[in-house]
Amino acid sequence: MGMSHFLDCRVYYQDTDAGGIMYHANYLAFAERARTEALREMGIPHAEMVKQHGVMFVVRRIKLDYQRPARLDEVIRIETRIEEVGGASAKLRQHFRRDSDSLAVLEVWLGCARLADGRAVRMPESWRTRMTEEKFERGLHTWIRR
Amino acid sequence: MGMSHFLDCRVYYQDTDAGGIMYHANYLAFAERARTEALREMGIPHAEMVKQHGVMFVVRRIKLDYQRPARLDEVIRIETRIEEVGGASAKLRQHFRRDSDSLAVLEVWLGCARLADGRAVRMPESWRTRMTEEKFERGLHTWIRR
Amino acid sequence: MGMSHFLDCRVYYQDTDAGGIMYHANYLAFAERARTEALREMGIPHAEMVKQHGVMFVVRRIKLDYQRPARLDEVIRIETRIEEVGGASAKLRQHFRRDSDSLAVLEVWLGCARLADGRAVRMPESWRTRMTEEKFERGLHTWIRR
Amino acid sequence: MGMSHFLDCRVYYQDTDAGGIMYHANYLAFAERARTEALREMGIPHAEMVKQHGVMFVVRRIKLDYQRPARLDEVIRIETRIEEVGGASAKLRQHFRRDSDSLAVLEVWLGCARLADGRAVRMPESWRTRMTEEKFERGLHTWIRR
Repeated sequence: MGMSHFLDCRVYYQDTDAGGIMYHANYLAFAERARTEALREMGIPHAEMVKQHGVMFVVRRIKLDYQRPARLDEVIRIETRIEEVGGASAKLRQHFRRDSDSLAVLEVWLGCARLADGRAVRMPESWRTRMTEEKFERGLHTWIRR
Repeated sequence: MGMSHFLDCRVYYQDTDAGGIMYHANYLAFAERARTEALREMGIPHAEMVKQHGVMFVVRRIKLDYQRPARLDEVIRIETRIEEVGGASAKLRQHFRRDSDSLAVLEVWLGCARLADGRAVRMPESWRTRMTEEKFERGLHTWIRR
Repeated sequence: MGMSHFLDCRVYYQDTDAGGIMYHANYLAFAERARTEALREMGIPHAEMVKQHGVMFVVRRIKLDYQRPARLDEVIRIETRIEEVGGASAKLRQHFRRDSDSLAVLEVWLGCARLADGRAVRMPESWRTRMTEEKFERGLHTWIRR
Repeated sequence: MGMSHFLDCRVYYQDTDAGGIMYHANYLAFAERARTEALREMGIPHAEMVKQHGVMFVVRRIKLDYQRPARLDEVIRIETRIEEVGGASAKLRQHFRRDSDSLAVLEVWLGCARLADGRAVRMPESWRTRMTEEKFERGLHTWIRR
């Protein structure tokens, strides 16, 4: 689990509010994009999760500390790290940075749930393996070994 | 079809952008709330549409003219009128006002589609009837006879 | 501080995602609406904060526990309680319920910041007073004495 | 003006709704990202517009035809073309495609407005020049000569 995934997201007008800064809920949207791309690179794309297994990850809990505001036109780099993987859940840590400035830190707990009724279910064993193994197919420049 | 439905929506930070005004795409979100409440009062709530008939309304086309910006904390009144009802479609006109100021006018074409595959289908006859009849159960203060 | 503010918000298509449930980040948007109305009833409307004092509340930290999903067309009741008020900050607790079911609990830490440069500033003394006093002007049905 | 700008955007959960498709208002958000990147490559980034000139582009009018739905995890390619440039306005055409399928076509009319009061103003002459000239600095792979 010594891996980090990095995704860069630009702040557009749609992400800001009348305070002139990125709207606080939109950090969760940026984080979802980053998690999705991290999982995709491990071979766990959302659409396939739904089609093949009828399951999806749902967010069970979040803790988010805002440190500095992000502003229009800035590029925010989101680092995603998987910290724990259980039978039906996973915990991730996502760090928002602009250049060397730390903007926000998010901890997010995901659960595996059946699409049909939302019931919690164990995640497919192959996913657990992919999320915990040290080596996996990497996208260009997005995974960096610590 | 000489009826108008009125819904008041407050502009929150979440609806604004760094330009200090309501973000242009959010007029469509406000309009969706207003349409949904108008249809609900005609006896066509979305969740029932899906459960009982497996169909939903999808947006086929929009034209939107922005006249004056809406700003934080303002209350926008949205008037919804059904202008045409076809076998599998309907056309609505939605007018955004702040007090006596006209802010925007939206024309929206809806189609009836199957949830399963998105295919266009005729809408249930009872809905057509409800959307075209002159009299229907009215919510408090929300429908005004022209 | 033995007061609760209640706001009811309907879940529209715009609030849901392809998982068939309310998108997790949108709880923060609902919570912002509820906080804003709670503050408005205490005599602290956002637009005035900006115009008169050049300050705004910014979100410093959130903890959010998701318990049960909210779905299309449901009405969610959000209870807002002010738990702590400091010189430049406040902590609120917001509880999401559908009828008697508890859906989610949010803790949110707000800071008072200058609009011009985002610097933390003490909040006007009159606001502190309003946020901490037992009695205040109440809107219709929205504040209930515990 | 025989130029096209292309931007690829992934559809995430945040972009979808309970109908299982991309929420109709989010096409406008994708289009804003594409326009912003097109303008940036012409040397007209939003943040600079605001800082140097105190002006911004606001949306005056949109026409949007939805042809086929976009779904979770799909990559949508948005082509942006500038069709007309006036003294204080511009008209763009934006085309949404998934591979060879046409998903939607948007026409958007922009106006140049002062940030301070929203008043319409002429756009800086250098911008007009950049938006109308045939040759400009191009980003990687994003501008294609027709």
